[in-house]
Order: sequence, then C-alpha cells, then structure tokens
Amino acid sequence: MIVKHMLHQPVQLDLMYQALADAGRRAMVERLSCGPATVSELAEPLNITLSAVVQHLKVLETSGLVRSEKVGRVRTCHIQPEALSMAEQWINQRRMTWARRFDRLGEYLKNEPEGSG
Amino acid sequence: MIVKHMLHQPVQLDLMYQALADAGRRAMVERLSCGPATVSELAEPLNITLSAVVQHLKVLETSGLVRSEKVGRVRTCHIQPEALSMAEQWINQRRMTWARRFDRLGEYLKNEPEGSG
Repeated sequence: MIVKHMLHQPVQLDLMYQALADAGRRAMVERLSCGPATVSELAEPLNITLSAVVQHLKVLETSGLVRSEKVGRVRTCHIQPEALSMAEQWINQRRMTWARRFDRLGEYLKNEPEGSG
Repeated sequence: MIVKHMLHQPVQLDLMYQALADAGRRAMVERLSCGPATVSELAEPLNITLSAVVQHLKVLETSGLVRSEKVGRVRTCHIQPEALSMAEQWINQRRMTWARRFDRLGEYLKNEPEGSG
C-alpha cells in the first residue's frame, strides 16, 4: 500500500531523522557543527569507541547529514548544513501551519460578539 | 558505556526523531498541524489502514509529538507544538553553531592581508 504523501516526503527525511534518533550520533553532529574532525577526534572526547564512531558515521553519511573524505590513513568528517536545514525545515513548516491556524482561531474568537453561539 | 553527552540529550529527542523517521507518521503530523482529527479522519485521506494509524499514533504519543483523548468511542488526536519546537530547536542550534563558525572564518579571511601565510 502506498501512502499518498510518500511521493512528496523524500526517503532522505526518513534517513535523517533516523540518524538523529541516537544520542551518540547527535553528539557527533554537535561536535562537527563546531568544525571538521577526524574519526579519532570524534571518538575520544565523546567517549565512544572507534568502531562505534565508524558505524554511526555510516548512518550519518547515508542520511546526507555528514560527509567524510580519506586522505592517506586519516578520514575527516564534515557537517552538511543543507541537509541539517532540510531536516529543520520540515518540522518548522508543520509548526508554522499550526501557529497560523492558532492565530486565525484567536482572531475569530476576538471578533465574535460576546454571548453568540 | 555511557556517552557523556547523553546526560544532556534527553531520551525524548531519540523518541521524537524516531517518530518522525517514517513517512506515514510524518503525514499524520502534517494533517494534525492543520487541526485535531479523529483516528478515522487520519486514516482515510492518508490512505493508511486504521490499525496502522493506531500503531503510528502510539509511537507519536510516546514521543510527545501528539496526544489523544477518547470521548465515548471516538479518539481525537492533537499535535503538541512544544514538542515539535523542541525537535526543531536541537537541529536549529547545531545549524547556527555551524553558521557562526562559517561567518568567523569569512571575517578572518577578509581581514587577513593578501599573500600572508
């Protein structure tokens, strides 16, 4: 069965929210928002094992939130701000739809003569 | 092993992003951002079965993004804008950290005398 909305909801949103649904991966995103870091630089301060970082990195890269490049034996990771922005915007648009409806409701109640209804 | 950051990253963020990582559940959040709806009202236009809506609703309610109440035989669902806002803000703060760093880098490069370094 195909959900109608699925056509407009790219699979990338699934992957991005899935990637963000883990405190270890969010800690990596948080660190990378301060600047690029190698896998070791991510592992040490976050107190996550290297192999856990590598696993999390795969999930983050698949989602598009992070990219990495290997030069020699060193892999450096970078945040992808456009992807972060896409994940933020989906939520923002829903919240704005709700807020506009709430404002209209407020206007309606303000203009409604007292005691009517 | 405890991730240091986990203490500051409430489990609720895990649950909220997990809830948003599904196109069917996002379609429900989208519909509810336009106003409250019963389970049947959610199921029909989204072309999701009633039992799928009930399952998705459980995940959304556990995450705090949606609440529902049953009056008689009818269960009505409401979006929880504060929770939506919390999910949005975590991403927004990371994006802003990145943008500020990028601005500082731009300033630095602008003020750097040409040819230095």
